[in-house]
Amino acid sequence: MRARKLAGGLISAALLTGTVALTVNTALAEEGAPPLTKEEMKKASKIYFDRCAGCHGMLRKGATGPALTPERLKKRGLNIEAIKAFIYNGTPGGMPDWGKQGVLTKDEIDLMARFLLNPPPNPPLLSWEQIKESWKVYVPVEKRPKKAANPNWQNFFGVILRDVGKVAIIDGTTKKLLNIVDTGFAVHILRTSASGRYMYSIGRDGKATVIDMWMKKPDKVAEIKVCYDARSIDTSKYHGYEDKYAVVGCYWPPSFVILDGKNLKPITRHATSDYYYDTKDFVREARVASIVASHYDPLWILNIKEAGQVWLVDYENVDKGTVSVDMIDAERYLHDGGWDLSKRYFLVAANMRNKIVVVDTKEKKLAAIVEVGTKPHPGRGANIDHPKYGPIWCTGHIGEKRIACIGTDPKKHKKYAWKVAKWIEMPGEGGGNLFIKTHPNSKYLIADRPLNPDKNLQRSIFVFDKYSFKLVKTLKVPDDIPGRAVHPEFNKGGSEFWISVWARKDQPSAILVYDANTLKLKKVIKGDWVRTPTGKFNVYNTMKDIY
Amino acid sequence: MRARKLAGGLISAALLTGTVALTVNTALAEEGAPPLTKEEMKKASKIYFDRCAGCHGMLRKGATGPALTPERLKKRGLNIEAIKAFIYNGTPGGMPDWGKQGVLTKDEIDLMARFLLNPPPNPPLLSWEQIKESWKVYVPVEKRPKKAANPNWQNFFGVILRDVGKVAIIDGTTKKLLNIVDTGFAVHILRTSASGRYMYSIGRDGKATVIDMWMKKPDKVAEIKVCYDARSIDTSKYHGYEDKYAVVGCYWPPSFVILDGKNLKPITRHATSDYYYDTKDFVREARVASIVASHYDPLWILNIKEAGQVWLVDYENVDKGTVSVDMIDAERYLHDGGWDLSKRYFLVAANMRNKIVVVDTKEKKLAAIVEVGTKPHPGRGANIDHPKYGPIWCTGHIGEKRIACIGTDPKKHKKYAWKVAKWIEMPGEGGGNLFIKTHPNSKYLIADRPLNPDKNLQRSIFVFDKYSFKLVKTLKVPDDIPGRAVHPEFNKGGSEFWISVWARKDQPSAILVYDANTLKLKKVIKGDWVRTPTGKFNVYNTMKDIY
Repeated sequence: MRARKLAGGLISAALLTGTVALTVNTALAEEGAPPLTKEEMKKASKIYFDRCAGCHGMLRKGATGPALTPERLKKRGLNIEAIKAFIYNGTPGGMPDWGKQGVLTKDEIDLMARFLLNPPPNPPLLSWEQIKESWKVYVPVEKRPKKAANPNWQNFFGVILRDVGKVAIIDGTTKKLLNIVDTGFAVHILRTSASGRYMYSIGRDGKATVIDMWMKKPDKVAEIKVCYDARSIDTSKYHGYEDKYAVVGCYWPPSFVILDGKNLKPITRHATSDYYYDTKDFVREARVASIVASHYDPLWILNIKEAGQVWLVDYENVDKGTVSVDMIDAERYLHDGGWDLSKRYFLVAANMRNKIVVVDTKEKKLAAIVEVGTKPHPGRGANIDHPKYGPIWCTGHIGEKRIACIGTDPKKHKKYAWKVAKWIEMPGEGGGNLFIKTHPNSKYLIADRPLNPDKNLQRSIFVFDKYSFKLVKTLKVPDDIPGRAVHPEFNKGGSEFWISVWARKDQPSAILVYDANTLKLKKVIKGDWVRTPTGKFNVYNTMKDIY
Repeated sequence: MRARKLAGGLISAALLTGTVALTVNTALAEEGAPPLTKEEMKKASKIYFDRCAGCHGMLRKGATGPALTPERLKKRGLNIEAIKAFIYNGTPGGMPDWGKQGVLTKDEIDLMARFLLNPPPNPPLLSWEQIKESWKVYVPVEKRPKKAANPNWQNFFGVILRDVGKVAIIDGTTKKLLNIVDTGFAVHILRTSASGRYMYSIGRDGKATVIDMWMKKPDKVAEIKVCYDARSIDTSKYHGYEDKYAVVGCYWPPSFVILDGKNLKPITRHATSDYYYDTKDFVREARVASIVASHYDPLWILNIKEAGQVWLVDYENVDKGTVSVDMIDAERYLHDGGWDLSKRYFLVAANMRNKIVVVDTKEKKLAAIVEVGTKPHPGRGANIDHPKYGPIWCTGHIGEKRIACIGTDPKKHKKYAWKVAKWIEMPGEGGGNLFIKTHPNSKYLIADRPLNPDKNLQRSIFVFDKYSFKLVKTLKVPDDIPGRAVHPEFNKGGSEFWISVWARKDQPSAILVYDANTLKLKKVIKGDWVRTPTGKFNVYNTMKDIY
């Protein structure tokens, strides 16, 4: 007898946050899969979206993390107890120890294990109507200031307060907090417009916000929710298109969305679902991992994570209804990256293949694929004009303690071009680096290590001489400030660098300001509002892509 | 009590043809939907694919025909009896009368009505591995002739024998049958390579075949199945890329596939699923309706039916792993079209909006959208260099009896450019035209009318003076030959035109050859092999896009 009983028909579960409505087809339940109530399905879907989807995908086909479909789990011989153990303890490969860390309770882990043994619910599409309805203009363009209220505005910093869904605007000159702006949930990145006047944030929840730095109290002037899940935003930086467009890269639905740069009015969108560059099989969930705007062409560089393709999106004819895309086969899974010193070459990590992909944006083709260390994580990387190697671009790694510096001048320094010209080694065991940074006016290369299991290393900042590559100093987060040191960022002139101390949401922490010459801690930015600070973005350095 | 009984779990139904394997999730069955056995599901899926999917879509979201999801049918208040009536009688809007025509039995119609009240089965993906396995080279390039065996080869015709899955190769000079080549099921179109040597066919079943016209007995030299459902194929015609690549436009999976031009080795593919150009909502089933190669740029023009976008696909860097696409917002639903006389402008029908879209392939942008009559169906259209209107491009209509001629010279004949410069009216009631054709050496414009309900008009060919637009003569299919007159095609020199007589599969019919000056029937090509002849493609006219 093949007939069986199933609970419910199609149910529509608006998730607890109200941000994601998953259509849960309980009729899809697998034979013998552990049953879930509607309430449990709702809760599990929300936890999955918040904690798991980033690495494993909404459709659970896998990306940075392995595939988690019921068939796949069964094939790997994983029963409910084994799955619970994975969720509780994590793995050395990078899976967090959600149970040990206390992020998920035992009951929640049991729920998630049962959820994973059922087929993934269909993630909803986001209609254009919904997008348009979410669009809010707080200050119309004509009511915005005609000139900057504060002469220091190009040295302002936007600081992501990640887990509280806010962005702090700090005057980099006076170190004063100017405003705290409500943005999307778990903001992933901030970018500035070509003029620098507008700063854009994109939340994990797909909400894009634009903040006007010319206001006396910089504040958001418009916002719109264009995806359920997103990681990237940038603007049109080509001559004649300054501040004209913004573009959001979505994780779900897999797409990019083009917006008016000043008021975020939605203009158009295109899907990024495509075929893997290598197997040529279909990947519905081909997500936009990161976006960077070219300064010299009307192009955005979109890194399509799963497909392993770099898309050069030409926005020159958007107003005529044309979007042009060069789809360049590269490597899996693309993550983030940055410009070389000349801003002709874009370098991006293929983090599961331990490669850096180099795209020539002038010739619109792949220039090289460079083998680096385990799980490169460049952020934007760091550029050094080196007397011996010529211009080099460096990346740290999550998976090991070395920093790889790649030669980027195939003409005058051909010998070092598109290979690791220099390895730099950090002290202590293991990797865990997320960001490195330098500045043309600084002699130092600064590296964090927040993902290292050693608490001491998590709270250390490593300062290297950028020419000799020798470790000059290891800076430590002061004992009275809880959290990990993360994301070095220079001020406009390169005379200071700032470090976030990333603690738990319920603990105020701090932003540390170091003198970039003496390496002395010159200021601790504190306050009850300093919660989970992560990325910080100096207006000038971000508008000019200085790193 | 919400629990209910459902038959079966996931079943995999290899369709009767063996060409499409649909994964049928019977657990998806709607509450109260009429039950289907596995066998019935198999049979209905096959009938749906053969007869319905072309207009209504594999996912039944609608295109040329309306959406047919169970929700949609219920919303329209259609119960099982109403659906059966539609399938039996057809509609004036274009739905064929499958019952009346005797194509489907009453039992089959009952089955289809029940099938439609169940959710559509998930169409399968076609893996790259499956595509590679289907690839067959019958004659390797190095074993092919170094020169043409027959001096008349540029005047050969390929004739589609649609319902028997074959292509006949006929010597246009001697009118002799040279070979009958087994190709895909229900071949949709034939195209030739830039040199003219290779003729490509694409079957409804996604099977691409290449025939070598230089062989003593022209025959297929390679084939590959790259989709489950397809309508279009073309090759690289740009200088330096002659005969280098072929490209297939798939209906399912929605994609285009690039192949080696000489041996059909699969190179790469990209998805065409995207957002509707107007509503900006996602359309998984955004199908490639037609493809035409540019002669002056390394471009293919792909018409993405549902999305209403024209994609200009640049193949210049395919060998470097880059495919570039200009995605141009146009109109719904795109069907087929052809070049203007200068081959700079491509004109394509948006058949549900009664529009012709004009794309400027030099500037890579939309040039105009022209309002024409009801359901334009240009095929490739017909070009006339007119003393008054300048160069014009004409299309017939399925939905009405007028032919619309559009001015295509915005420089010297601006007054007539991108509007209907001249309407030509066919005698009798109703439309039903599928193809019109002319030739630079002919003074006539020839039009068929096979979809007209009047049997007399179905069997008539209308000959107009191409300058005065007056009806010169109406040609009739000889009484002893069964079927409808369809698809005029000129020979190389323009001194003859050929007409297919399209009868049922079980009736041998004929190909009629008319003198293009005297309009006399000069030859009837007959034989038991002449079954369901439809499109005919002269090698020279096809390689040069002369129409």
